[in-house]
Amino acid sequence: MKNFKEDLVKIKAFAFDVDGVLSRTVETMWNDGQPMRTANIKDGYALQLAIKLGYKIAIITGGNTQAIQNRYSALGITDIFMGQSSKKEVYQQWRNSNHLADDEIMYMGDDMPDIPVLRAVGMPVCPADACADVKQVVRYVSPFNGGECCVRDVIEQVLRAQDKWGCDLNW
Amino acid sequence: MKNFKEDLVKIKAFAFDVDGVLSRTVETMWNDGQPMRTANIKDGYALQLAIKLGYKIAIITGGNTQAIQNRYSALGITDIFMGQSSKKEVYQQWRNSNHLADDEIMYMGDDMPDIPVLRAVGMPVCPADACADVKQVVRYVSPFNGGECCVRDVIEQVLRAQDKWGCDLNW
Amino acid sequence: MKNFKEDLVKIKAFAFDVDGVLSRTVETMWNDGQPMRTANIKDGYALQLAIKLGYKIAIITGGNTQAIQNRYSALGITDIFMGQSSKKEVYQQWRNSNHLADDEIMYMGDDMPDIPVLRAVGMPVCPADACADVKQVVRYVSPFNGGECCVRDVIEQVLRAQDKWGCDLNW
Amino acid sequence: MKNFKEDLVKIKAFAFDVDGVLSRTVETMWNDGQPMRTANIKDGYALQLAIKLGYKIAIITGGNTQAIQNRYSALGITDIFMGQSSKKEVYQQWRNSNHLADDEIMYMGDDMPDIPVLRAVGMPVCPADACADVKQVVRYVSPFNGGECCVRDVIEQVLRAQDKWGCDLNW
Repeated sequence: MKNFKEDLVKIKAFAFDVDGVLSRTVETMWNDGQPMRTANIKDGYALQLAIKLGYKIAIITGGNTQAIQNRYSALGITDIFMGQSSKKEVYQQWRNSNHLADDEIMYMGDDMPDIPVLRAVGMPVCPADACADVKQVVRYVSPFNGGECCVRDVIEQVLRAQDKWGCDLNW
Repeated sequence: MKNFKEDLVKIKAFAFDVDGVLSRTVETMWNDGQPMRTANIKDGYALQLAIKLGYKIAIITGGNTQAIQNRYSALGITDIFMGQSSKKEVYQQWRNSNHLADDEIMYMGDDMPDIPVLRAVGMPVCPADACADVKQVVRYVSPFNGGECCVRDVIEQVLRAQDKWGCDLNW
Repeated sequence: MKNFKEDLVKIKAFAFDVDGVLSRTVETMWNDGQPMRTANIKDGYALQLAIKLGYKIAIITGGNTQAIQNRYSALGITDIFMGQSSKKEVYQQWRNSNHLADDEIMYMGDDMPDIPVLRAVGMPVCPADACADVKQVVRYVSPFNGGECCVRDVIEQVLRAQDKWGCDLNW
Repeated sequence: MKNFKEDLVKIKAFAFDVDGVLSRTVETMWNDGQPMRTANIKDGYALQLAIKLGYKIAIITGGNTQAIQNRYSALGITDIFMGQSSKKEVYQQWRNSNHLADDEIMYMGDDMPDIPVLRAVGMPVCPADACADVKQVVRYVSPFNGGECCVRDVIEQVLRAQDKWGCDLNW
């Protein structure tokens, strides 16, 4: 854990999966069978603050709906990769085009298709309800479930480690 | 806690945040990316009773949707301030225009943007799942999460302290 | 509790509140501010079985939406009283028109407006998350929350006490 | 439990109920009174993998909505039997037409109408929140509730027992 906290200081960028990370694993369906994704307001606060502070943020998901695009672009995120079957490839292209090193990036995923990215990134993390195989390859398991503040938890930790949490607040 | 209970007797007005207070922090999204806010029926009972008894109630939120307007105006609330980025300013204008003092007002908020109001109001309170910084500046943390009866909890406590709870009931 | 179990044998009819009993206390809203009520599939099984066995079932609620009407009429319930502000009056008229005695009826409610009916009925019961005042006037508090199988719990107990549970099943 | 694990090696096919198994027991309603079923993304991953590996999968439900049809056909499931009042008959026809034996099939159900199938199938299982009578006739009660990863749990166990879990992953 000492190394974990120290390594948070290096983080310049975040990448997140949607289902099971930004949204819950269990989701109500539209009539067409598409899941209505959940939004987390506390995650949203942390995401827009990180963007304002200049952190790079990517969303990499197999899903592909207007709700994802609209919610996260409204928070200021421009790198939204939807309908992706090979997340690792997307991750590496995004890393390269942003001139980032693996150990400057935190990735949070929750299920089997995230494992190749989690193995590649410098700071792999997951929610409390990630699957067993994912928990074995991450450096930190958040106490919060997917969709239920796990994203807020890790962004807040990085910003605190870098003395930037609360900097937008007129105390 | 003794002072807390005593100070509840002074309360003449309530102000509430929406996301994470009147509604849950985790919310299902419409296709346009807007959160479908949750309503709490037990909160609703307490809100309409407080309005009938003459308490002033304000809703101050960064959100801006027809559901918020319709739900709370149907309960009898007229001071609904939506789309607000500076909650403290709105709070102070509402306080002044209603000729209230800070220690006559209870405010419940759950996240960083609520902290300036929580520092200004006489009776700052928060839900069980408020963020860590909010918990440090309030006088009472409800055992109920945002959207899950935290508003009912504090209104009921104030009305009981003032011998008004159940006054509408034909026992 | 001995008397409670014995008195279940007398029950010929059930009346239920909707919000906080058949549906959860916390509900997602439509854009018009109306709560989307929740349905419980296990409650539904018990309701349709009780109707088939000849028990009288009434739904008495302050709410008034097409979803309530459609859901419960599809299960075979004809006595659906919506938009009611005085539940006790509705209860008494329904009791009289069905030639029932108070101790033949179980009523489940969760909040202050249910208390007058709970005081009138022979078998008052409530969900685990009913408000404090309701818990003081009931004979049984279900271990299940409103919307989360509390209705199934009490119907199943009555039918078991009367040796009718599972009678529809081709074992 | 030793026999349970050993018998998982024989499983070639799965059949699932919807409400209370693939979806939660508590579901938000559309205005027409139909439950909006929930989808579970981790269940979805396991279902599509099992289909790719050649396992037979059937869905047998009393419900009948476009969301069920669309969600599960998109995952590659072709045997979707909706609006069924006699699940055992459907189960037996599906078993015969696929030339399967009872002990090659796992069935997961949660409520009274599932009991006839659970008694017929070789490997009857249920979610943590199945009703009491169902728990008495199954060989395994998942620690996960209906809709909340109980399907993932049992598919993952079968595939691990047959050394196929993770086989789609480029480690």
